[in-house]
Amino acid sequence: MEFRLIDRIRDRTALTREDVRLGIGDDAAVLAVPAGQQLAVAIDTLVEGVHFPHGTAPRDIGWKALAVNLSDLAAMGAVPAWALLALTVPHGDAAIVDGLAGGFGELARQHAVALVGGDTTRGPFCLSVAVHGFVPPGQAMTRSGARAGDALFVTGSLGSAAGGLQLLQGRVPFDANNEAHRTLRERLDRPTPRVRAGVALRGHASACIDVSDGLLADLGHICAASGVGAALDLDALPLSTALHGVFGGDVARELALTGGDDYELCFTVPPGSVDAMQAALAAVGAHATRIGAMVEGQGVRAIDGAPLAAMRMGWDHFGA
Amino acid sequence: MEFRLIDRIRDRTALTREDVRLGIGDDAAVLAVPAGQQLAVAIDTLVEGVHFPHGTAPRDIGWKALAVNLSDLAAMGAVPAWALLALTVPHGDAAIVDGLAGGFGELARQHAVALVGGDTTRGPFCLSVAVHGFVPPGQAMTRSGARAGDALFVTGSLGSAAGGLQLLQGRVPFDANNEAHRTLRERLDRPTPRVRAGVALRGHASACIDVSDGLLADLGHICAASGVGAALDLDALPLSTALHGVFGGDVARELALTGGDDYELCFTVPPGSVDAMQAALAAVGAHATRIGAMVEGQGVRAIDGAPLAAMRMGWDHFGA
Repeated sequence: MEFRLIDRIRDRTALTREDVRLGIGDDAAVLAVPAGQQLAVAIDTLVEGVHFPHGTAPRDIGWKALAVNLSDLAAMGAVPAWALLALTVPHGDAAIVDGLAGGFGELARQHAVALVGGDTTRGPFCLSVAVHGFVPPGQAMTRSGARAGDALFVTGSLGSAAGGLQLLQGRVPFDANNEAHRTLRERLDRPTPRVRAGVALRGHASACIDVSDGLLADLGHICAASGVGAALDLDALPLSTALHGVFGGDVARELALTGGDDYELCFTVPPGSVDAMQAALAAVGAHATRIGAMVEGQGVRAIDGAPLAAMRMGWDHFGA
Repeated sequence: MEFRLIDRIRDRTALTREDVRLGIGDDAAVLAVPAGQQLAVAIDTLVEGVHFPHGTAPRDIGWKALAVNLSDLAAMGAVPAWALLALTVPHGDAAIVDGLAGGFGELARQHAVALVGGDTTRGPFCLSVAVHGFVPPGQAMTRSGARAGDALFVTGSLGSAAGGLQLLQGRVPFDANNEAHRTLRERLDRPTPRVRAGVALRGHASACIDVSDGLLADLGHICAASGVGAALDLDALPLSTALHGVFGGDVARELALTGGDDYELCFTVPPGSVDAMQAALAAVGAHATRIGAMVEGQGVRAIDGAPLAAMRMGWDHFGA
């Protein structure tokens, strides 16, 4: 099975890169990291019924498995290059594999990511993707560089993916004829990794993380790693029109704070670098919203001191 | 869950490498490939009930998950450096995670492999490991370099892991007091990746593959990729004393031909390089047995022309 399936996947993700000296077909790929670059690597797993609902379209699963990994590279400011795919499926169903590979390949081509290796096995439906990107020495963004006084930003909008999940879970019944509903589902199923924004933020942001588990949880990681606190301006949280329209402001804000799967970038910027950062983002067609500031202390609070710690902190996959 | 479990794993696999500029704890690791080296990368998945039997000790699972990947690097002649671990477990059972991490770390320390990233999720029990190693430009061994007239070798002995599986499956009941039985189980549960042998073979072997699916299947990959055939000397197959003693010569030979999970290296050597190759292996305490030759044509046959193609070809995980 390994060889036939991996061939199907390779055919659907074909992409030539000069730095891939030996691709799929041997026991390992051989890759050349460009001079003057370091390697950023990450791995993430999607499990059916945990990270995507049963019945999700294979194309969307393939897209999302790569997207969540490219989002990790984006948070470091790395330029994506190569991916490995470990695919476990219950049956050697060619239509599922073709769909997965199609969605994976669609996003891979957008970022010139080459699939350089993989493994396909029989078992419960899950996928692990490992990605590799390039970043100049010393320029990777981390979670630990935030300082009190830094401004706090987030790209795009928050909560829409969680809104899409609410629709799936039937709290508001999903209506395929409702454009806002479709928009929210699209944000859940086909997240956009903020790759260009991440690269543009290098040299401007003092700390960065992608919002995969929810803003409060992920911002909390920056706080813990940097040894500072954060004061959030709840009224400034960027909410999509679709999210606000379907759920109203209060629920939308809660989803924006605690919902996972947004894959936006949350980052901090020293006050003197804010203008240059905004210009760098604008140059790549990205935008970010100022949502607060880093402060002395620890943990995340609202600027009026409201007890954000009492809210549900992110999407704990073991508690979900 | 992600953070607590990955911390447990990190604590049990701690190892410092100068080329790891940023390890576990950010969205991606940042790594420096040494000047003059290319990167060999591979990924492999183990699924409970498919790649290891239910009830296998967590320490053995952790060991094997890394071992099968290091074996892929060995087949390329790469020196292992870094690993990523994607772990999916049904419950956040600390004892299982500690066991896995312990076995993984035990083998990682033997080869100075640093765990640089990971992901832990809830779901059916499976692990994907991605490994990274170094190889000088142009020196990686592949499957495609074998030529007619090359001598054919395999390291160590074949069939013992398959013998261990037979004992587990009860065809011969496993007896824990039987030393030969224990030896065969050990070969199944704790394979030794032939890392030093692989590096020593660089510059001597014309093609190389690791024996994961069975000699006939894996040698068949060399034949297909190189466009040549192979003639096997069945009487020369290296069988362990334990395998021969438990199963007798005929069954032992069949297990050696078709059993998976040996993780020995099967490789070809131009006639003029055989002496130098043997010396290079001896210098690292490894040994290999000459088991035939590459010939014009295609596919694997016995030197007396016996129809090896009619035998079961390796361990197809979808047919198992």
